[in-house]
Amino acid sequence: MVRLGSALIAIFAVGSASAFAPASQHAVRSTHVLQMTTTEAKDPVKVGVIGCGRIGIVHLGAINKAPGVVPIVVSNPTVSKAEDAAKKFGVAKFTSDAMEVITDPDVDAVWICSPSQFHADQIKACAANGKHVFCEKPIATDLAETVEAINACNEAGVKLMIGLQRRFDPNFLRVRRAIEEKEVGDTIIIKTCSRDPSPPPYEYVKGGGGIFNDMAVHDLDMTRFLAGDDPIEILAVGSCHIDKSIEDLPGSEAFDTASCIVRYPNGVSAMVDVCRQSSYGYDQRAEVLGTSGMIATDNVYPNTAKIYKNDYTGNADMPFDFFLSRYFEAYVTETEAFCESLVNDSAVPCTGIDGLVALVMSLAADKSAAEGRWVKFSEIIGEVYCSSPTECSLIANDDMFPEGFKPVGDINNLDKIVLPDVDQKKEESFGDKLKSMIWG
Amino acid sequence: MVRLGSALIAIFAVGSASAFAPASQHAVRSTHVLQMTTTEAKDPVKVGVIGCGRIGIVHLGAINKAPGVVPIVVSNPTVSKAEDAAKKFGVAKFTSDAMEVITDPDVDAVWICSPSQFHADQIKACAANGKHVFCEKPIATDLAETVEAINACNEAGVKLMIGLQRRFDPNFLRVRRAIEEKEVGDTIIIKTCSRDPSPPPYEYVKGGGGIFNDMAVHDLDMTRFLAGDDPIEILAVGSCHIDKSIEDLPGSEAFDTASCIVRYPNGVSAMVDVCRQSSYGYDQRAEVLGTSGMIATDNVYPNTAKIYKNDYTGNADMPFDFFLSRYFEAYVTETEAFCESLVNDSAVPCTGIDGLVALVMSLAADKSAAEGRWVKFSEIIGEVYCSSPTECSLIANDDMFPEGFKPVGDINNLDKIVLPDVDQKKEESFGDKLKSMIWG
Amino acid sequence: MVRLGSALIAIFAVGSASAFAPASQHAVRSTHVLQMTTTEAKDPVKVGVIGCGRIGIVHLGAINKAPGVVPIVVSNPTVSKAEDAAKKFGVAKFTSDAMEVITDPDVDAVWICSPSQFHADQIKACAANGKHVFCEKPIATDLAETVEAINACNEAGVKLMIGLQRRFDPNFLRVRRAIEEKEVGDTIIIKTCSRDPSPPPYEYVKGGGGIFNDMAVHDLDMTRFLAGDDPIEILAVGSCHIDKSIEDLPGSEAFDTASCIVRYPNGVSAMVDVCRQSSYGYDQRAEVLGTSGMIATDNVYPNTAKIYKNDYTGNADMPFDFFLSRYFEAYVTETEAFCESLVNDSAVPCTGIDGLVALVMSLAADKSAAEGRWVKFSEIIGEVYCSSPTECSLIANDDMFPEGFKPVGDINNLDKIVLPDVDQKKEESFGDKLKSMIWG
Amino acid sequence: MVRLGSALIAIFAVGSASAFAPASQHAVRSTHVLQMTTTEAKDPVKVGVIGCGRIGIVHLGAINKAPGVVPIVVSNPTVSKAEDAAKKFGVAKFTSDAMEVITDPDVDAVWICSPSQFHADQIKACAANGKHVFCEKPIATDLAETVEAINACNEAGVKLMIGLQRRFDPNFLRVRRAIEEKEVGDTIIIKTCSRDPSPPPYEYVKGGGGIFNDMAVHDLDMTRFLAGDDPIEILAVGSCHIDKSIEDLPGSEAFDTASCIVRYPNGVSAMVDVCRQSSYGYDQRAEVLGTSGMIATDNVYPNTAKIYKNDYTGNADMPFDFFLSRYFEAYVTETEAFCESLVNDSAVPCTGIDGLVALVMSLAADKSAAEGRWVKFSEIIGEVYCSSPTECSLIANDDMFPEGFKPVGDINNLDKIVLPDVDQKKEESFGDKLKSMIWG
Repeated sequence: MVRLGSALIAIFAVGSASAFAPASQHAVRSTHVLQMTTTEAKDPVKVGVIGCGRIGIVHLGAINKAPGVVPIVVSNPTVSKAEDAAKKFGVAKFTSDAMEVITDPDVDAVWICSPSQFHADQIKACAANGKHVFCEKPIATDLAETVEAINACNEAGVKLMIGLQRRFDPNFLRVRRAIEEKEVGDTIIIKTCSRDPSPPPYEYVKGGGGIFNDMAVHDLDMTRFLAGDDPIEILAVGSCHIDKSIEDLPGSEAFDTASCIVRYPNGVSAMVDVCRQSSYGYDQRAEVLGTSGMIATDNVYPNTAKIYKNDYTGNADMPFDFFLSRYFEAYVTETEAFCESLVNDSAVPCTGIDGLVALVMSLAADKSAAEGRWVKFSEIIGEVYCSSPTECSLIANDDMFPEGFKPVGDINNLDKIVLPDVDQKKEESFGDKLKSMIWG
Repeated sequence: MVRLGSALIAIFAVGSASAFAPASQHAVRSTHVLQMTTTEAKDPVKVGVIGCGRIGIVHLGAINKAPGVVPIVVSNPTVSKAEDAAKKFGVAKFTSDAMEVITDPDVDAVWICSPSQFHADQIKACAANGKHVFCEKPIATDLAETVEAINACNEAGVKLMIGLQRRFDPNFLRVRRAIEEKEVGDTIIIKTCSRDPSPPPYEYVKGGGGIFNDMAVHDLDMTRFLAGDDPIEILAVGSCHIDKSIEDLPGSEAFDTASCIVRYPNGVSAMVDVCRQSSYGYDQRAEVLGTSGMIATDNVYPNTAKIYKNDYTGNADMPFDFFLSRYFEAYVTETEAFCESLVNDSAVPCTGIDGLVALVMSLAADKSAAEGRWVKFSEIIGEVYCSSPTECSLIANDDMFPEGFKPVGDINNLDKIVLPDVDQKKEESFGDKLKSMIWG
Repeated sequence: MVRLGSALIAIFAVGSASAFAPASQHAVRSTHVLQMTTTEAKDPVKVGVIGCGRIGIVHLGAINKAPGVVPIVVSNPTVSKAEDAAKKFGVAKFTSDAMEVITDPDVDAVWICSPSQFHADQIKACAANGKHVFCEKPIATDLAETVEAINACNEAGVKLMIGLQRRFDPNFLRVRRAIEEKEVGDTIIIKTCSRDPSPPPYEYVKGGGGIFNDMAVHDLDMTRFLAGDDPIEILAVGSCHIDKSIEDLPGSEAFDTASCIVRYPNGVSAMVDVCRQSSYGYDQRAEVLGTSGMIATDNVYPNTAKIYKNDYTGNADMPFDFFLSRYFEAYVTETEAFCESLVNDSAVPCTGIDGLVALVMSLAADKSAAEGRWVKFSEIIGEVYCSSPTECSLIANDDMFPEGFKPVGDINNLDKIVLPDVDQKKEESFGDKLKSMIWG
Repeated sequence: MVRLGSALIAIFAVGSASAFAPASQHAVRSTHVLQMTTTEAKDPVKVGVIGCGRIGIVHLGAINKAPGVVPIVVSNPTVSKAEDAAKKFGVAKFTSDAMEVITDPDVDAVWICSPSQFHADQIKACAANGKHVFCEKPIATDLAETVEAINACNEAGVKLMIGLQRRFDPNFLRVRRAIEEKEVGDTIIIKTCSRDPSPPPYEYVKGGGGIFNDMAVHDLDMTRFLAGDDPIEILAVGSCHIDKSIEDLPGSEAFDTASCIVRYPNGVSAMVDVCRQSSYGYDQRAEVLGTSGMIATDNVYPNTAKIYKNDYTGNADMPFDFFLSRYFEAYVTETEAFCESLVNDSAVPCTGIDGLVALVMSLAADKSAAEGRWVKFSEIIGEVYCSSPTECSLIANDDMFPEGFKPVGDINNLDKIVLPDVDQKKEESFGDKLKSMIWG
């Protein structure tokens, strides 16, 4: 509970800002050129990369190009992959042991590109060793563990950036820019559609946490990113159409298809539909209707060629086939963005809170589909943090809370269970400090 | 209750066929030419048209071109409009009195293109005078009156076709053909989007029955048309974004924006979103994901020209601006289709049941949005027809009903409250007749 | 030579207006509705149709719908086709003999939809009988005969409209409107592309006059229609790629593919490419670059549906397959336009001169491809009309010609070999009459 | 003449291969990832870059990422730019003097990114110092000097790659792949269109060599690249529409717009149109019709977003605005390709001959536009190399030339005036060597 008290300060400085941080400077290709001209000559930030799988390699390549940042150590359980990566990118050290990266005294920041189940522990280890962290989503699959990992970083005063890479895709960024600049007026409805090229094997689905946690979470986050606001409640529904063997799995693991409606403030709603099979390549689209127009994105093709034959006329090639090809540029951009944060000691564009809220949204969707009803996001937090009605009520009614404060458990008050992060701390104004003194 | 008994027979012959009747022969332009070559020389069907507004004129023009059908009388309260129409299309008689059309002894069939509030009475008057009926949707805004009007036609043995014109649009028809021919495999999810160019005035909205009744009903019907099946339940939600003056109106009259999820058998779901303002022209799209692909339609532009300027590159013109221009061809095609039914005495492609179900769906959406929960379509019927729990239970448990029969009130058993129509009667097989004798 | 003298007057009234006459009122679909409301009650124009093949039937259908015009007789050598057409459209008389249409005392105007070789004689017969004429292109394949047929109409004072139907296609019309309204600034370059779905049989090609006469002529005319000006010279080249059996045919009959550059005044040029086989449906596109932008059209598809499968993503259907489906609407519109000219006694939107110039352009292309050099259009006319150098020189230097007058044979002075048509005569101003008295 | 004798051998090994060399391995984005995994550990190739303008920086960035290649020195007349570049990319040395790069004993290869007028001398200096050369096009603006520079490299046995970057654009590459794999059958016609966003200043145009040399040369090369064959003759025409001040400049410097038809073997033709102003961004498209279909590219946009407003519906953003943004990826890819050639000692994908032929094509276009006639490419070579008719005839008729050999001056026999390059020499088979002994 001490945490809640001290975290209170943060909300004045942050608001829903975390949903609306990065972006416009990454929207166009010319960025690559422009960034080159801004490098200053100072000591480079030294970083390590945990995990030399495909994603690790993509991030390592991006780090390698980023000005002011130098990779000095990489790790992978199969050490030969670490060695190959080290050679290719001229990295001095490689190891099979992630902890050697985390504890390396020369390392300033760590990219965690290991399997999801190791994320939370590795984040906490980084925090314990004073290293800044870039972590592929998710932080953890469990809410409490997620909060713990975030707070570990916040208490240690290290940066934590979560890899919600779609936020760095030029297409989605363009939609967000349209919203920010009111190109289509005030937002009325947001629609996203995500379809994987083919369903994962039974083994992946079983125990994977269900379609909302392992798939729709990206879309739910995207609706929040586009809305620029925090959501209120969700209605979700799922079904199984492709691999009928999963139908016996529990909860939303039995679904290969799902639809959600998410309600945001001011009557804005978001419609999300996902499917584990699209047949026609990776389908990733967004559409936003505003009071003065609409903006919509299409899938991305490797070239603009169209072909005209006696049985079809259309694109000469299929769209990018899956996340690695479709979001290649986005992965690079997010790593560049974190490198910038490190080099300039500026706020990270995608925070632990962003990762936490995405998890809450997917848990709520899960519950909604199971119970066939609207679920408020506050319910999810309440379940975890209000261990007794008394405790919950106490928190909600504590008269030291400012007027208009929503009861604990509200997604808007995640900050109450999460400490202010390192960048928020720096942003405290004198007023904030005053409030801190009064209420802290 | 006598009705229910006698209507029972129909369900064996019909099934959900009404959702899947017309269409493929109207899909391509060459139809117009081909149809010309099939005309036989026999006495033409003589028809009358009630209402010479814009829609009436479109239908009259289509009747005028259709082989084997001759318009002989038109009516309009402002008789000069009837006179103008008569002159233009060489119609022999015109009148200010709709009843003169309905009672004209030479008239075989009547097109009802009057304002909605007159539909039900005029349909019943047609039935009483033995005239076949084409009626613009809706039959009535009230469920009981709708059933009454349908049954009036069915008892009189006259054809009743409802003008759900979108079912005749080449774009939506193409999607349905894809589904029928399994071009994208088995249907997983259906999505439609409807946005009017600009919101109607306050006066139109007030008392208009709300956004589900006066707008989304077309989309709800389209999801059923595309699904080729009857829906189970609906979840709807609405909001107000444009003209805030309507926010005080009751129920869904306060909404200018709404979203629905409709559940169909086999896990198929439909997502519908509508808005009373699109800014960029009339937006009418559909998308269907199947197990082996996707099909999606776009809006319709008056030409294919694209223009490239220093501030934009895109379509040279705006899409068709509203229903009359966008669905002009569909209005013509539906009238051609009814003319064919008349000339060949074949079943109409869009029945009273189709109109009735569309109304039930919009009423259920209204209820769902009001109560924030899933609403089964059977609830709506039950409310009207199960005037007491006992009555409802009696109907549901009547042991003369075949095994597996769902309780009355189910949308699948609308036939129990609706008599068999004139075309169904003709299709009764010997087996049906036997069943009729046993159960009738 | 008498003709030249009397024709001289026309040029002041006409200029290059013939290239820029019809159009904008036909551009949008709503026209159909609007036209309906303008009909006046007066005696209908009675017309006949020669030829009940596919094109004849399309025109007959359009006449049938046009206000103020009534078809009263149709002919076809196979009389049963005439009979069928008469029945279908309620035409009172039918015959196997075209002359019975032409000489029918009740007929005011004749649509000539017979094979090309009959056109010139039937036009002249119409003129002799005082009937207005709509004639499918070409007037004749021979230049002298073309002039003769035009002048027969002009001397008889009957209207002559040529069916260059592409001028009535909404896509090409949209491009022309962009040019007229300077939407893309001043025209720099015009590009058209025409490709037939598959090559005609050897028998059709042999003796057909070559690819410029039987195919590219439409494109050459379109460049003139879009340029709104008369062309100066042409460079053409051809080759054979598909059916090698035609390679031995003479001149441009050996080509299945051809390219042209046409030079217009003010440095405007047009690039045309045609091919007898596209494999992917009928390809008919235009593109115009202007000083402030570009406008381009695409092919026309029967609907907007796109389909996404595991091996392609593109249009759900092929584009319209050939001229009858692609230009169905254009054929109807051109007949409507002629009906309007008849009913209102207004100028026809596509004159005999337009047909004549198109022929001259194709003859020049033929010569250019044969001789591998730029050919001025004046050469073609000169060859036919300057039977001796003296005669030619006399015409060119006759000092009664106004200053700046280009030598005879120039495409701009076709009027000198062609009489003023019936509509031009009406437009003669007092000044024109004065000139006529002075020079006539 | 000695050159001719020794160069003769090459033609057997090369044919028109130079037009059809690189490409398919660069077509898709995944290449970037794949290339990373193939790096071997051997001594890196050390390179220098002359010119640190925008293009030089792009190439330097690409070199920096390419495995096995290390930039060790950069030069720029304004030395601060060289210094900045060196810092940014960690290059050890920088200088204001290009010769210090060329003569640096550690340098294996040089990228020449200086202004065009220095290219030829710097190439020859590189050859003299035994350095491999990558040179931005053009080699020189003068034909003789171009041949000299090429032969300097060939005699020195150093690689020479010319930066015709469009050959590395994924869109054009996709078209070429379609041709190579006969996706659209045998090529019938090739069309390209190039339009710069806005015209260059008068000073740039004056003395710039005209629109064919400074602009259309890229398109002419592209037609050859796509045709996979050497062209025969050209017809060109130009005009001035935008900045009328250039109209007084000599030859094709007076044109801002030009069209060409290029004839290739087997009746294949190419149509090229270029304009110095498009208003709507950089327009760079290609279209190829084959016997079984068509393939066409569109311009490239920074994202897939489309926007729908009350006055237009189209792309949310303009296409890439000029060559640096549009061809950014192509510049990187061509440098990667040269790095591969260096590392693996394999043939360069874009040779000196390719640069030479492109120049010949633009010179012929210039001549054609000036003289209003078809110009064979052989004429251009003949003019330079057949200094007397006797010499020319001797070369053409020398009976030691193999049967079917075309007379010198033919574009197909450029090899006779150009020595075999370093990669061709390695490819000499025993048979070639035998021929060499016999004829050499």
